[in-house]
Order: sequence, then structure tokens, then C-alpha cells
Amino acid sequence: MAESIPSSTNSETDVGPLKEEIMRATYCALVEHGYNDLTMQAIADEFQKSKSLLYYHYDGKADLLAEFLTYALGQFLSEINVETADPRAQLQTLIDRLIPDPIDPDTYQAQIALLELRSDAPHHPVYKEQYTTVDEQVKKTIIEILQEGVETGVFVDIKPAVEAELLLSILQGVRMRRVTTHEEFPISSSRAAIEAHVERFERATPTE
Amino acid sequence: MAESIPSSTNSETDVGPLKEEIMRATYCALVEHGYNDLTMQAIADEFQKSKSLLYYHYDGKADLLAEFLTYALGQFLSEINVETADPRAQLQTLIDRLIPDPIDPDTYQAQIALLELRSDAPHHPVYKEQYTTVDEQVKKTIIEILQEGVETGVFVDIKPAVEAELLLSILQGVRMRRVTTHEEFPISSSRAAIEAHVERFERATPTE
Repeated sequence: MAESIPSSTNSETDVGPLKEEIMRATYCALVEHGYNDLTMQAIADEFQKSKSLLYYHYDGKADLLAEFLTYALGQFLSEINVETADPRAQLQTLIDRLIPDPIDPDTYQAQIALLELRSDAPHHPVYKEQYTTVDEQVKKTIIEILQEGVETGVFVDIKPAVEAELLLSILQGVRMRRVTTHEEFPISSSRAAIEAHVERFERATPTE
Repeated sequence: MAESIPSSTNSETDVGPLKEEIMRATYCALVEHGYNDLTMQAIADEFQKSKSLLYYHYDGKADLLAEFLTYALGQFLSEINVETADPRAQLQTLIDRLIPDPIDPDTYQAQIALLELRSDAPHHPVYKEQYTTVDEQVKKTIIEILQEGVETGVFVDIKPAVEAELLLSILQGVRMRRVTTHEEFPISSSRAAIEAHVERFERATPTE
């Protein structure tokens, strides 16, 4: 999931200026307060318009956050597809977005907040549903990237579904370990291991 | 991290009958109440002796849970080493304990509680420290298993530290995805992907 909300939108994820503004306020409130201390008031404080407008559009925090997950997923996926059409570069973008190095303080706080949110999913069917979709969509994107790579000869004859399952878990595992262990988590060695892993896919000399 | 506390102890993890009893009560309370709703009273309710005895030994919930993490890690690591000396079988035990299939309801609830606990680590230096140790120790164990496998010719010439980094993340990623998405998480396809991944390490015909 993308933690930084890019300032530009595109047609696929364009949700209208009001929703965009609410989503941005939600992101800022999450970064500032974390998930456990997040309130509608905290989101309203980041929002230029009235709090009643928030309640008009959303039943409450859970409803708003479910929408936020959909929005952040859309932003994340569109970024990966928009920046390049090269499978290896797309994979790298995905890795860089999920486990950036270096990581700026806001993104670090956002990753903590999103882990808190995710760990609360077992108690909220709506979050569970959202995370099921998030994981399915990210995995589907990885599968498509790998398939494209195999078809164009950039990657060797791997099984995209199997490798996507592994990559998704690796990236999520690293994200969790990073924010829940020491501040100086050795992200560079995690990234080097992923690099070595992905190199197994790569054809030394692409066939085209 | 082991979720089920085995009834037997061994010399390495023998912490005395009282501590053993407290750890068991903590586990039961975590399964029943989760982490967020866990109180010292809830742990005392699972404990045959007095609540004041809990407070005599621990400063509070965080202190007790930090100790619990150490205890559960010890149990987990001793199990892996005790059951067999075969690297491939040790790896399988590790996988089976971290992402069991099938998973019994108590273990499922314990995994949810431990994810909640872990996601609270960014706010508690003592948990962060514990999880740093937990991850380091589990990774060290995986490295040792892989090294032993390479030396005895069971595994091909892999880089144990790189592969341990990947495996640890994969297993933690799967655990998190399992309890935070739909109830019927396809654990068998996650396990099949890990199986395929581990097969890359294996020598078709061991050299000895």
C-alpha cells in the first residue's frame, strides 16, 4: 500500500476534489496520530471544510478508513503502471514504494499506522474485506508484471502465481519487521536479499 | 513465535513451575481476550494463585508480555532443535509451527493477539527490543539450519543469510495476511509456494 499520497491524480483514480481532500486529511491524521488514537475530529482538523461534511459522507472512522484503503490502493497501483512498461522496472517501483530506502519520517509513521490498522482487521469485517481486496489486487499486479516479463523474455520460465505469492509475503514481512524492531532496521540487507531473489527470475541476456 | 505452549518443558527453557504457570495463564488470557483487551486481571483469572503474586513478579502488563515473548521464543526454538537433526525436517517444523495447516481456533486467536501485540511495538521500546531479539534468534536458527544443510550436501550452495532473511519475511508475511484477510485464507497455496521456494535449495540426490 502506498503511504504517500501523490499530489497528482489520474483518470483511473480520480475520485473528485472533495473526496481527494478527505483522503489527504485522513492520511495526514494517520501520520500524526497513528491509527489507535485516530478520531473523526483529528481528520476534521486536517480538513479545510466542516466536520459535519465528513459525517455526511461517511458513517464513521471505520467507514472512512475502508474508503481510504481503496483510495490508497488505487493510487499505488496506478503509479506502478504509469511510470514504466518495463516489467523489471515495474517490479522495482513496487519494491521501492513498499519498502523505500531511505524512508522519510511521515512514510515511516504511515507504515506504523497502517500496520495498526491491519492488525485491527480481525475485529472489523469491513477492514478484512478491504485487505483481502488489497492483497488480491497487489498480487494480481505482481502476477501481470511477471507474466509480461516471461512473455517478453526478460524473465526466465517462472511460475508467476507462485512467485507473486512469495514476493507479496516477503514485502509485507519486511514492512512489518522494519517498524516493529529496532530503529536502525537493516533495510539495505533486506533489499539486497530481495534483489538476489528477483535476480533468479532474470534472464542474463534477454531474448528480445 | 510458537503460539501453543507445549505442556512439557526441557532444561533449556525450564523457567520454574511458577513462571511456567504465569506464562501459561498469559497465553490463555491472550487467546481469550486478545491483546488490546488484555488486563492483569484477565491473566490473574487464568492463574490459580493470587493476583498480587503476578504484581510481585511483574511491574505490569508490558513487563509480563515482554517476558512472555522471551518464553515463547525459547519454547519455539527448543522444539525445532529437539525434534530432529535433519535440516530439511527442521525447516519443515519451523514452517509448520509458524503457519500451521490446519490451524486450531486457539492458535488462530493467539496469532491475532500476537499480531496486535507486535503492531503495538512501535509505541513500546520494551516490545521493540523483544521483537528485535525474536527476529534475530529465529533468523539465526534458520541460518544454522541452512548452513548445516549446505555442509551436509542436503542443500545446494545457497547463501544462508540471504535465504534466511527471505524465509523469515515470507513466513511473517503469510502469518499476517492469513489473520487479516478472509477467514478462508488459502494457506495451502501459500504453503505450496514456500515448498516450491525451498525446493530450490534442495539437492536432487544428496551427496551423502
